[in-house]
Amino acid sequence: MGHFEVQIADSTTRARLGRLTTPHGIVKTPVFMPVGTCGTVKGLTPEQLCSTGASIMLANTYHLMLRPGVEVVERLGGLHALSAWRGPILTDSGGYQVFSLNSLVRIDDEGVEFASHVDGARVYLDAAAATSIQNRLGADIIMCFDQCTPFPAEPPLLETAVRRTLRWAEQCRKAHNRPEQMLFAIVQGGIDPGLRTRCAAQLVQIGFDGYAIGGLSVGEGHQHMIDTVKHTMPVLPLDRPRYLMGVGNPSDIIACVMAGVDMFDCVLPTRNGRNAYAFTQAGPLRLRNSAHACDGGPIEAGCDCYCCRTFSRAAIRHFFNVSEMLGPILLSLHNLRFYQRLMAEIRRRLGAGTFAEWAPGRLEEYLRLSM
Amino acid sequence: MGHFEVQIADSTTRARLGRLTTPHGIVKTPVFMPVGTCGTVKGLTPEQLCSTGASIMLANTYHLMLRPGVEVVERLGGLHALSAWRGPILTDSGGYQVFSLNSLVRIDDEGVEFASHVDGARVYLDAAAATSIQNRLGADIIMCFDQCTPFPAEPPLLETAVRRTLRWAEQCRKAHNRPEQMLFAIVQGGIDPGLRTRCAAQLVQIGFDGYAIGGLSVGEGHQHMIDTVKHTMPVLPLDRPRYLMGVGNPSDIIACVMAGVDMFDCVLPTRNGRNAYAFTQAGPLRLRNSAHACDGGPIEAGCDCYCCRTFSRAAIRHFFNVSEMLGPILLSLHNLRFYQRLMAEIRRRLGAGTFAEWAPGRLEEYLRLSM
Repeated sequence: MGHFEVQIADSTTRARLGRLTTPHGIVKTPVFMPVGTCGTVKGLTPEQLCSTGASIMLANTYHLMLRPGVEVVERLGGLHALSAWRGPILTDSGGYQVFSLNSLVRIDDEGVEFASHVDGARVYLDAAAATSIQNRLGADIIMCFDQCTPFPAEPPLLETAVRRTLRWAEQCRKAHNRPEQMLFAIVQGGIDPGLRTRCAAQLVQIGFDGYAIGGLSVGEGHQHMIDTVKHTMPVLPLDRPRYLMGVGNPSDIIACVMAGVDMFDCVLPTRNGRNAYAFTQAGPLRLRNSAHACDGGPIEAGCDCYCCRTFSRAAIRHFFNVSEMLGPILLSLHNLRFYQRLMAEIRRRLGAGTFAEWAPGRLEEYLRLSM
Repeated sequence: MGHFEVQIADSTTRARLGRLTTPHGIVKTPVFMPVGTCGTVKGLTPEQLCSTGASIMLANTYHLMLRPGVEVVERLGGLHALSAWRGPILTDSGGYQVFSLNSLVRIDDEGVEFASHVDGARVYLDAAAATSIQNRLGADIIMCFDQCTPFPAEPPLLETAVRRTLRWAEQCRKAHNRPEQMLFAIVQGGIDPGLRTRCAAQLVQIGFDGYAIGGLSVGEGHQHMIDTVKHTMPVLPLDRPRYLMGVGNPSDIIACVMAGVDMFDCVLPTRNGRNAYAFTQAGPLRLRNSAHACDGGPIEAGCDCYCCRTFSRAAIRHFFNVSEMLGPILLSLHNLRFYQRLMAEIRRRLGAGTFAEWAPGRLEEYLRLSM
């Protein structure tokens, strides 16, 4: 069974250096999890993903339950066999996609009916089904089925979403039948402090292996997000991992590590990479820009990724201009390595006791660079 | 400067085991050259390409002269710097693309004017320009500018194309100003034996570092192609490499090695790979086929490529079904490895003296499997 241990709690900020033990290996926290929606991080082999320093991958239950379907994944031996990723995997519950892909048909206290984005077929999902599917997919960490709200949302909707999220969390807890998988609950409540507190406290009372904050990074902006995270963290137990779902920019990550978050996932490094956007410590680069046409230098001097060790900015720009897959591949690699280097720096500084003096300056710098 | 040496001439067939020395390394022949049109084999990093056993890559002058342009490539330090491919590179002359991409505007004995497939801009290309561009791109082997004919073609057109190809070859020879690059001539003449003989003989009289057969694999079919190759080979000098352009299927390759060809290039392994078609010794697999939906086995048992060592057919089928880049990437890898294993087997048998007894059976088998 999974196990989490806080090794160092920073004395100035609320940041923690931790260690999450799973059946497929150890995850050092704070950690960034690349998103492998359909069982693959877009454009990369598991070998290349590993080379970026990733220790755990996220996959999406919603997409996998539609294609190839849970029966196929189960027959192959689970998500690890399908994806050939040997490290830990976390699956979300499908809730977020049901509410965000405009596919919702009907929702009540029991569950949701939605139209498949693949063929429009009606699919029913509730807490028991979402848990059973995740049990069968076989990730190391699985998530409770929750109701995610948009931003902004009226108080009655937020209230209902929290009530259902709590009800479903309890049902997920009961339905969960693979003790080697950790089950995390998800705190909802929009940016309403009272609702967040109530939701978090009641989830803690039920008791889970970890706690996620959901329903953020949906348009509320950096400050609302940080405020909500800061407000919610103290309600969660110190000895359990905290996971901020779908976040975010480097600045979001630094701020939220300072607030006590241990785990992050986001499509930004790969999605931006596919769109010719590269993260660097000096700010973002847009590789389609003609400024790079004859630039023989790497994306980021000093970066140890395969892209920076091997290719010039001019070559990468050329690959994007002629629509070669290699452009998206190389920038996905670099951006993921950028994120992993950021997380490694955070962990190193937490270990050395220099995080609190470093983080505010770096945060300010990344905010200034709009990244 | 480049150098070619025949190490073993098979005593039964006309096949040869050879060694081509270039500024960027040694190429064992018979060799298959993967196609990296714009400086990258589609979907693969140079590291992955190297892992397939490729020793030399082809790139297309026509595409590179349009984007990023010869000035950019030159400023970066040449095609090796752009592509990050450390081994030998061969560039074609651009002739084939000018005649095949429906872009031809005007042609006479001096050269051709064509409309760029990128933006429609008028571009002029002649023997001196094609050679100068290739000198500046900096490949290890460059090709003469030739006139390629479609199939079928009327005798007057074939005759004119041969006349121009000879005239231009002489001009290329004169214009060529980088002695470290090998310059190959291209034999044209459709499937007309007399024209092929005349073209080959006159090119040999001018004298080149190697000789290519162009204008085949344009719809004439396996037997016409083999007959033309068999007819032309004896006209070419034994001590120079022979390159059959744009060919082909595994069966074409075996038959043409038996006829004395040393070098091949073709988009089939990568183009087919991107379309979910995998080469195996037992015949082609179409990975979108539902027969593979739950198949936990590799594409080809015993294949040592990363794809076969790592992924199931079911996983690859899934990646194609959900349009993940990983599907095309994995099958491109596997198919290129399949081709390189075929070439390694051919070379091994030529070295061991068992090629002549093996080749006809394998050829018949691949013809039976339509591959």
